Amino acid sequence: MSNTANTTPRQLPPGLDQAKFQSFLSRAWDICGTENVDVISPTTELKDGHYMDPCKAHDMHAVYERDYFVASAVLFPRNVPEVQQLVRLANEFVVPIWPFSIGRNTGYGGTAPRVPGSVGIDLGKHMNKVIEVNEEGAFALVEPGVTYFSLYEHLVKTGLDQKLWLDVPDLGGGSIIGNAVERGVGYTPYGDHWMMHCGMEIILPNGELVRTGMGALPNPDSSPDLPPHEQPPNKCWQLFNYGFGPYNDGIFSQSNLGIVVKMGIWLMPNPGGYQAYMITFPRDDDLPKIVDIIRPLRLQMVLQNVPTLRNILLDAAVSAPKSSYTSEAGPLSEAKMDEIAAQLDLGRWNFYGAVYGPEPVRNVLLTVIKEAFLSIPGSKLFLPEDRKEPHSVLRTRAKTLQGIPTIDELRWVNWVPNGAHLFFSPISKISGKDANLQYEVTRRRCTEAGFDFIGTFTVGMREMHHIVCIVFNREIEDERLRARWLIRTLVKDCAANGWGEYRTHLALMDQIANTYNFNDNALMKLNETVKNALDPNGILAPGKNGVWPQSYEKSKWVLGESEPWEPAGVGSKSS
Amino acid sequence: MSNTANTTPRQLPPGLDQAKFQSFLSRAWDICGTENVDVISPTTELKDGHYMDPCKAHDMHAVYERDYFVASAVLFPRNVPEVQQLVRLANEFVVPIWPFSIGRNTGYGGTAPRVPGSVGIDLGKHMNKVIEVNEEGAFALVEPGVTYFSLYEHLVKTGLDQKLWLDVPDLGGGSIIGNAVERGVGYTPYGDHWMMHCGMEIILPNGELVRTGMGALPNPDSSPDLPPHEQPPNKCWQLFNYGFGPYNDGIFSQSNLGIVVKMGIWLMPNPGGYQAYMITFPRDDDLPKIVDIIRPLRLQMVLQNVPTLRNILLDAAVSAPKSSYTSEAGPLSEAKMDEIAAQLDLGRWNFYGAVYGPEPVRNVLLTVIKEAFLSIPGSKLFLPEDRKEPHSVLRTRAKTLQGIPTIDELRWVNWVPNGAHLFFSPISKISGKDANLQYEVTRRRCTEAGFDFIGTFTVGMREMHHIVCIVFNREIEDERLRARWLIRTLVKDCAANGWGEYRTHLALMDQIANTYNFNDNALMKLNETVKNALDPNGILAPGKNGVWPQSYEKSKWVLGESEPWEPAGVGSKSS
Repeated sequence: MSNTANTTPRQLPPGLDQAKFQSFLSRAWDICGTENVDVISPTTELKDGHYMDPCKAHDMHAVYERDYFVASAVLFPRNVPEVQQLVRLANEFVVPIWPFSIGRNTGYGGTAPRVPGSVGIDLGKHMNKVIEVNEEGAFALVEPGVTYFSLYEHLVKTGLDQKLWLDVPDLGGGSIIGNAVERGVGYTPYGDHWMMHCGMEIILPNGELVRTGMGALPNPDSSPDLPPHEQPPNKCWQLFNYGFGPYNDGIFSQSNLGIVVKMGIWLMPNPGGYQAYMITFPRDDDLPKIVDIIRPLRLQMVLQNVPTLRNILLDAAVSAPKSSYTSEAGPLSEAKMDEIAAQLDLGRWNFYGAVYGPEPVRNVLLTVIKEAFLSIPGSKLFLPEDRKEPHSVLRTRAKTLQGIPTIDELRWVNWVPNGAHLFFSPISKISGKDANLQYEVTRRRCTEAGFDFIGTFTVGMREMHHIVCIVFNREIEDERLRARWLIRTLVKDCAANGWGEYRTHLALMDQIANTYNFNDNALMKLNETVKNALDPNGILAPGKNGVWPQSYEKSKWVLGESEPWEPAGVGSKSS
Repeated sequence: MSNTANTTPRQLPPGLDQAKFQSFLSRAWDICGTENVDVISPTTELKDGHYMDPCKAHDMHAVYERDYFVASAVLFPRNVPEVQQLVRLANEFVVPIWPFSIGRNTGYGGTAPRVPGSVGIDLGKHMNKVIEVNEEGAFALVEPGVTYFSLYEHLVKTGLDQKLWLDVPDLGGGSIIGNAVERGVGYTPYGDHWMMHCGMEIILPNGELVRTGMGALPNPDSSPDLPPHEQPPNKCWQLFNYGFGPYNDGIFSQSNLGIVVKMGIWLMPNPGGYQAYMITFPRDDDLPKIVDIIRPLRLQMVLQNVPTLRNILLDAAVSAPKSSYTSEAGPLSEAKMDEIAAQLDLGRWNFYGAVYGPEPVRNVLLTVIKEAFLSIPGSKLFLPEDRKEPHSVLRTRAKTLQGIPTIDELRWVNWVPNGAHLFFSPISKISGKDANLQYEVTRRRCTEAGFDFIGTFTVGMREMHHIVCIVFNREIEDERLRARWLIRTLVKDCAANGWGEYRTHLALMDQIANTYNFNDNALMKLNETVKNALDPNGILAPGKNGVWPQSYEKSKWVLGESEPWEPAGVGSKSS
């Protein structure tokens, strides 16, 4: 079947008419082959997809209408030079392109572009090689299509999984590059994926290919016969991040300044022993006590990894849908949540951690950990073998915390029928008072919007990523609108408290960027200046994280912050 | 005494005549007060200074003539708005400015500017407040003039030194901001100072004030009555580096894109126990064995900190000058180095490490460490109390490795009379083969240049900073020229092996930047594009690390790589 038959998209790129779009397509066919160009036509079904096969190029959770965050076409380049040619083509036609590696994090928008009608660049379909796993240096060099699953399989096949551990996020289907570049986290001691990346190969908006850090220093085995992207890597590229002169990597994270086509990621040497555990805390108001215990232990590295503190409903949702617990509508009551916790033999808060190292080291650490946490009345410690229920979160986390990818935790999305989700993820100080206040504010708003509070605190070194999972029925417009009101209101509430989000869905990018407005938006002006210098035509992911190129009239593109739905009696107080 | 008397500098800024320079000065007087403007006049003595009081604004080691890397004047702004005004003034007059915090790292050029006649901006003299030490968050927020000594004193005075440890480099007189921004290292588990910084306030080349990361989100206590630089910090600014959107901090390290006026630095919680140790290895050719033992132990975090492996002569030089060991000229022989090692009860290589944590943890780690290293025949382990000699390096390192600043190690500079030094610092893989090859290449060239090899390997996570200390007599021209030939040759040799330097003296910046030339200097083109966008007039530290603004004709400013001195019989082979 030829893909050339239908060249009419649902949504043309801004500024292009059908004829020009068709010329663009025919040039793209020449570059990638017709089989690697998909037009999202009016007859293309915008399916929900499921996790392992998300429907490309639109927001499958339909936070706005499905036709809003939708691409005109998706291209599947087969190698680095093809991406470079496509970038140059985009400059020639002044077409916005939206690159993604796998596009799996649908809670932040998945594969969908910020600007309707953008051309999606699917980097992962063909460019999915594990270029190197280096045992001595404990790193991998990968392409955008390498997922946690595929790198893990590679390690298992080569027997290196006994020596080198991955760090994986909750779900293993995502791209290693995509996750690190968006500054996602995992849960081993290597949980800060951005910190653990080392060396990148990047295509700039003008099509130029750059290697950062030590990668800019040619390997002595380089040859003029090889194109740049095939030059052998400098042997320190994946060993030392900074190189010489300005350290540029950061501006290519959460940004629209370049397309990362190779990246090094550090792997954790097998620590010589491992024990996962869960500690359950019975009362909702145990939260501040727990967090104040976490802080010093984490700072001291007694908590060696990135542990999580999960609210009961996140674990309950992994276990079974809401309908199995209640037939009532609306947010669950305190009593009901206590009942569910008792039924599942879980706490209102559940802490998932692990200790790493030889047995004597683990014993010392576990003793300290038990002594500290079990001082909270009613708390209980479980090991994975203590939990016999199907879909035990602890048994899944026992994999995750040693870097074995899973998809079990996707189950919580089914809390409601046609479960869609949005993540609200403010940063919090590791302090009982702050965590409690942030929990109180976010939970109250969830209740006002008619949703259950489902959330988790992911503990970094000195801060927590508080991930509030807004789960709604994507087929009910009222729920979608309530979810939108909720998240917009949460952004405002949190900013008023001095809290900011670390990452967001397409629909919220401008609003959140606007909260980082110190000194008359000085940071955004800096971002825009760099954007305009590197991407004068504004072709690369315009609007990503609120950074609009000069060629876009920003006010025309920013989505309004007022939403059609508001809770009764709340009115404008939400601002 | 008024500073207004003498307005004629040794060296005018490029493009300015005396009249225009005088107008610039009088405007600077208005901004900072006449007492805060020093002109470096023909009668200003360009002294050698000593470590705790380096003579400002020239290269005290005289790698080139003392009149070459010299400022026209030095300004001492008293606060952030004055720096902003000076930056705007520099734009108005198109005068190059060269900011420094303390300027203590004289081995890389100290306070001297890259472009002769630049105006030095001494940030440290007045802006030296410890703004906050936060015990719960384990961080400090400091100004450029805060040194390791002064922050340490602050901790001691407030009793916080019992709870929070600094990480310090070899010498404690430098600026915390300056060191981190130049990506210097220390030796505790927090040794990667750039990694451990968190949040910056930066003046851009246009004079705008930016806060990075979470600092861009206003604190709820912000007030329109306060100027931006006095706004209270966001409470997560020093807790979470990345913020939202592009993570910009890196482009302000080793760069000429902004002036850092506030920075957060993470402090290490007292680990609950500590033990420093030294292991001596008798033979020069033990090097590869030692390094191959280090790698897995460091990757496993059995070596928890940034340990060092020092060549005998570095320790011998701390103990006494060369003249006390020999009256012969030229590099010491193998036999002589063995003799010195025996005399000092040291090895040809000496490894300085420490274990951190409660006693049971330390015992486990020390057992593994001993078992591994003491397998090398003749190796010996010492604790600080074992060493009774004056100026024991181990006793000094026992302070350094727990974050207590010292200046004892400055003594090695006196290896030769009028001892000056230059650092050559390539990055090496942690592998016996690579370390050995790098040692062989660098030592051979030192010998050809007539110098002793004095060096140390500083062990990062997956790489080593190999620091070769080129010590020469600054009053003997021949020695200066030999040092220059040596370092230029080492840069070439290392590049040919695929090794690059992480940092360098002013004189070498262009040469080293040129070795990072993958894909037709794609990285430098990126750096230049960003530079020109943020600093269109090219006023901020032009030429720093090889990045020249468009307003400078690069070829006019780059120093030639051929040197007047060459070893007999080597000739052009050195290239």
